[in-house]
Formats: sequence, C-alpha cells, structure tokens
Amino acid sequence: MSTVTDSRTGPLQGVTVIDLTRVLAGPFLTMVLSDLGARVIKVEWPEKGDDARHFGPFVNGESAYFATINRGKESIALNLKDRDDRMVLEKLIGKGDILVENFSAGALDRLGYDWTSLQSINPRLIYAAVSGFGHTGPYKDRPAYDLVVQGMGGVMSLTGSKDMPPVRVGTSIGDITAGMFGLGGVLSALYDRERTGKGMKVDVGMLDCQVAILENAISRYFAESVVPEPLGLRHPSITPFSGLKAKNGEYIIIAVGNDDMFHKFCDTIGRKELSADPRFGSNAARTRHSRSLYSELEKSLEAKSVSDWLEIFENAGIPCGPINSIEQVANDPQVAERNMIVAAQTERGTQFKMPGNPIKLSGYDDPDTRAGPPALDQDREAILQWIMSR
Amino acid sequence: MSTVTDSRTGPLQGVTVIDLTRVLAGPFLTMVLSDLGARVIKVEWPEKGDDARHFGPFVNGESAYFATINRGKESIALNLKDRDDRMVLEKLIGKGDILVENFSAGALDRLGYDWTSLQSINPRLIYAAVSGFGHTGPYKDRPAYDLVVQGMGGVMSLTGSKDMPPVRVGTSIGDITAGMFGLGGVLSALYDRERTGKGMKVDVGMLDCQVAILENAISRYFAESVVPEPLGLRHPSITPFSGLKAKNGEYIIIAVGNDDMFHKFCDTIGRKELSADPRFGSNAARTRHSRSLYSELEKSLEAKSVSDWLEIFENAGIPCGPINSIEQVANDPQVAERNMIVAAQTERGTQFKMPGNPIKLSGYDDPDTRAGPPALDQDREAILQWIMSR
Repeated sequence: MSTVTDSRTGPLQGVTVIDLTRVLAGPFLTMVLSDLGARVIKVEWPEKGDDARHFGPFVNGESAYFATINRGKESIALNLKDRDDRMVLEKLIGKGDILVENFSAGALDRLGYDWTSLQSINPRLIYAAVSGFGHTGPYKDRPAYDLVVQGMGGVMSLTGSKDMPPVRVGTSIGDITAGMFGLGGVLSALYDRERTGKGMKVDVGMLDCQVAILENAISRYFAESVVPEPLGLRHPSITPFSGLKAKNGEYIIIAVGNDDMFHKFCDTIGRKELSADPRFGSNAARTRHSRSLYSELEKSLEAKSVSDWLEIFENAGIPCGPINSIEQVANDPQVAERNMIVAAQTERGTQFKMPGNPIKLSGYDDPDTRAGPPALDQDREAILQWIMSR
Repeated sequence: MSTVTDSRTGPLQGVTVIDLTRVLAGPFLTMVLSDLGARVIKVEWPEKGDDARHFGPFVNGESAYFATINRGKESIALNLKDRDDRMVLEKLIGKGDILVENFSAGALDRLGYDWTSLQSINPRLIYAAVSGFGHTGPYKDRPAYDLVVQGMGGVMSLTGSKDMPPVRVGTSIGDITAGMFGLGGVLSALYDRERTGKGMKVDVGMLDCQVAILENAISRYFAESVVPEPLGLRHPSITPFSGLKAKNGEYIIIAVGNDDMFHKFCDTIGRKELSADPRFGSNAARTRHSRSLYSELEKSLEAKSVSDWLEIFENAGIPCGPINSIEQVANDPQVAERNMIVAAQTERGTQFKMPGNPIKLSGYDDPDTRAGPPALDQDREAILQWIMSR
C-alpha cells in the first residue's frame, strides 16, 4: 500500500470515494476531496488506465499532468465488463460513501449502473456525475471538451479583444469549474445524508457551469438588451481598472475603484490636473472617456519600470499588480508562504511539483508534501482486503 | 418578511448564514449556499449597503449586478461601530451556523471580531474569510481585486496571443473561483462539525485560488523548465483542438482528441489525404505541424457556414461547437432545459433574469423563479424577532 494514509487528515477523514473519473473535471473534484482528507480509490481500466497517464510532459516516464490532479489517490484496475471485476466494483460501491464519474451521459447506465441500481446496492451512496451537458436536455448525448464548452458557454465571447481572433481562457476552466460545482454538490449531499440517512444524485454539466460563471454578463444582457463584448484588459464599468503600458511596453495592472482613489492615483503619478479634468470627474465619465484617460496615463507610466511603479503604488495603497509569468508565480513569496506549490513523489521515486490546496482550514495541517499519484493498480491488494473486511 | 422561505428547500435547509460580504467573491459563495437551501442573512452598512447595489446596469433604479448574486437573501442594516448594532450582530453570530466575510485581511479583527472572539460567542460557528491574499504571508495586507489576482496569479500570462497585448479572462474568475473554493471549505467544515461539534476557520485567498486553477501549467513549468505562453485558441498538446475559420471568417471549435477521430474528421470534410500525410500521422506530429494542419483544414472549412458544419460534425460524432455570444447562450435550448436562466423579482416588482444553479440534486426542486434580492434592511423585523426567539 502507498503512503496515502499520511495525508488523510482533514474534515473528510473516514469518507471513501469510489472514483471512476478520467482526465480533468472529475479528477479535479476527487483531488479536492482527497486534499480535504477523504480516501479516494481510483478505479481504472486495466493496462491503459486513466487517459491522462499518457499526457505529457513526462518525468522518468511518468506523467506530470496525471500527477497534478491524482496526488494522494489509490488505484485499482478493473474491467467493468468482466464479471469478477464488476463484483469488486459493486463491493466498493456497497462500502463507499461517494461515487464520482465523468463519463458521457448514459455511459454508466449502459454498464448496468444507473442511479436506481446504485441506490439498490447502497442507499447511502452519493453519486456525482460530471458530464459535458448534464444528464438531461437536447444536447445530453453530445461529446464535449473544455474547449467546446468554453466556446458554447459564452466566456470566449467575453475574452480577448474585439478586432482580434477569439482566444480560449488559458486554463481549462470548463473542466475545473465543473469539478468545483460538483464538489459543492457532493459536500452538500454528504451533509444532507447526516439528516436523511440517504444518498443523492448530483448531476453537473460543464455547459451549465460556464453559464453560472458569467455572472453579470447575463444580467446585463437581459437588463439592457446589449450583447457584452470582449474588452481586452479593461473593466466594462470601472475606470481606471485595466492593464497599462509602463517602461519598455511592460504592462502593469491598476485597479482604481472610486474617486478618492483616483485622486490619490493622479497625485502619485504627478498628474493632479487629470483629477480636475471634467472628462474624468466621475467613474461613469472616466468609463465614457477611458481611451483618452488610458492614453494620458500611459504617457506618465512609461517613465518607470513595472517594478518601480509597483513599489510606489504599494506604498501609496493603490491596488496594483504585475502580469506574472508562470515562472514568477511559481517563485512568488506569497505563493510559497501560503503553501500553494506542493511536492508529491511516486512509488518509483519521481518527484513532481504542483498547485497546493487553496482551502486553508484551522485545526488541520496543510502539508507541503503530499502523497504521490498512484501507479496503475498499485493498491489492489489493500483495496481487496478492505472490501472483504467488515 | 420576503418570500425567501419558498425557495429554501435543499440540503442546507435549517442552516443559517450570517453574511458580511460585499461585491462579488463573498456574495457568490453565499448565493450558492442560498441556492442549496441555507437561510442567508446579509448584514449591510446602513444607508449605502453593499457597494454592488450601486453598480449598473439598473432596472427601475435597482441594480441587476446586485440582484444576480444576492437573490434569495435577507437583509438587515447594521453599523458595526454602533454598540446596539454590535449586540444584534453578536446575537446573530450566536445563533448562526456560518459567518462569511470578504473584508481585507484583519478588518474584521479590528472591528473586534477575531477568530478567538467569534469562537467565544459561538463555538459551533464556521467562519469563512475570503480575501485577496489570505490571512497570512507577506502580501496579506495588500488590497486586491479580480483584475489584480488574474494578473498576479498567472492565468493572464496563459490567455490571449503571444504577439498581442494581454487580456483578462472575460468573467471575474479571480472572485468566482475564490467564492467556490470558499464554498468547498464551508461545506466540509459543516460536515466536520457533525463529528466534532465545533466550528472551524476557513481562510481562502484569491491569489491561492488562481494558482490552484493553473493545473498542468505549473507542473509543466517544473517538469520541463519551460514557461508556458498564451496560445490563442489552440490546445498546447492536442491537435486539431482549436477554433478554426469557416465561411465568412466565423470560427468553429473542433476538438479531435485521437487518431481515429482525426481519420473520421478528415473523411468528413473530404480531406482523406491529410490522414495519410506523415506530418499528421500522430497527435505529437500534428501538434508539431499544427500551423500547416490548421491552414489546410481552414481551406476546406471555409466552404460552409459554422451552422452547416456543426450539423455535419454532430451527425458524424465529432466534438465541435460554436463560439456563442451571450445572446446565443441566453437563448440556447440546452441552457433553457437545464434551467440555467432563472428569474427573480424584488419587493418593488422589478424582475431580473440571471444564471441559475448548476448543482442539480435528485430529491430537490430546481425552481426557475427564485426569491428576489432584498432591499436594504428589508428583513429587519423578522430577523430581530428571530434572534430574540429561543
């Protein structure tokens, strides 16, 4: 058995997750459950395992992609079309608390495990299904990927610049937000079970989650019948609230939310006259004249480097920041202090670094090393023993 | 009292949230708690209330922005520097289950409510603090906004195109992901309390959450010492997996994840010879030659409109999709069928439409009308009566 036990200290200690997920949305969900102390038993197809095991980059032949979202889990390989293996799965379902899958809608039903069957095996089971479009509606049988739901869900129409080709959000937020709303569903179902003694089905669709994160874009559309468009770096209704060019064309983020802060900001860059200019007298006026204002501000900002300005603005209490590269993020002192880069080692000794757990809980450790991702089928014996035990 | 009671059917029924949050990250968290059945009592400063009440667009003088993330909540106005009002807050804390705030770090402490004091008022209280950088570390006292943490946290360095000015992600994912990880913390603490009888402090920093959603960009950096860059629409390691130009320069999303699908795709667009081309013989080869491949594919795709291609690809089972505008999202049949646009009405009769709840739970209704956002101080009498009751 792996060293998984070491990290199982958290609010979900004692909770067992039967994890049929692959690639990203589902594994992200069960990774957070594991970070919160649950035991996660990953059930994978024999030989090949989770597709993500074959996604680069690789270190010593082991996938860094897989490691990131599967740290701290156990693995057993089961062929869900084989009779004996199905019996093992059913024992797992019988003893587990939560079953998570992110097959396409209906795939688990076709394997013989629809929600009614699952309930008959274990009435306390919480069943979470994360799929592209959810288990109902006209698109339910369509395949989906992160890129597809980013495009269909509207976020892509808000990201980028109007006269440029469209761009995707640089991380897989289609998958990740679905994993996170799935997490909310699973945890609320777990709390519910304390009252009712019964499990629940949680049905989360990636497209739904994209709509949920659109927040005021949807209400703006319905309130004003105006279709929101991509705005590059700037905020639709707060000004100056954007990235602006400093020395050498490097960008600095400035987030000035009200008039007092705007006056302070103008003073700080030596442009007092701008706060007296009627074009910039209120946030609404500044937003109407954002192009002129930003061009005036850049004339002053180009005199100093981003790091010089950051120091000046921080001392003045003006919300600001750099646009960090991944290298800068990975080496940031706050990120380090908050333990947001953690290490995990596989049984073969490969060490990976990856994002930590942002949910910091009093009373529980937040270790900077985590149990590694499992090799395929690594925990078979211990898992088989567990299902045979009382 | 408002009609809030009607919608309070969900796993969190019976749970009371004391909500000191403003604007976005915190209100998003407590909105999901309300959607899941909790009673949310929003405590606002007298006269002005939540800043978001003053953010446009407005309908009949009421903010659509505020409505979207405050539906179904109750409101009481309290001056947290006034002695009598502080006693009311302390009674609320004494009777509540969860306190959520998104002040800057230390602000609630300065009001006299640090974690130790909160515990002495109510040892079962769960206290969730959502702040820019969390409550520890060198940046903890700095102000932050969504735009600032998007820049600092790395997602901006991955979004957009290399030769273009940087762009923000078109929704406030800095705020929203913090609200969602905060939700995970609160719900796991609620489950924990069933075992321990004690509350917990949940400390979530927006910057931490940005790191958490970087997933494989972080592990790629550590595994290969290569700093990931923005890639426009395309996927870093899967090809063809991008948006491509069809007729009239409109984009279509194509997500072809493996060789079999690639062969099918080439057949479907009448370009069988491409699947035989050694440059495109494997995913790795296709990714190396993505520029040539995409240019070849666009030569064929420009013959038909996006909607024609979508029909063809859907029939062939090839994952694809449009890049929808917010208007198209708001009128999409799947979005409607999944109840992802809901309506809520204020006491003054203003009706708003907004994103629904993507967490679909068996056994609980998912109503398409929700209780409206509260007017400032709307529920004072009922809340005062409640704290005086046993």
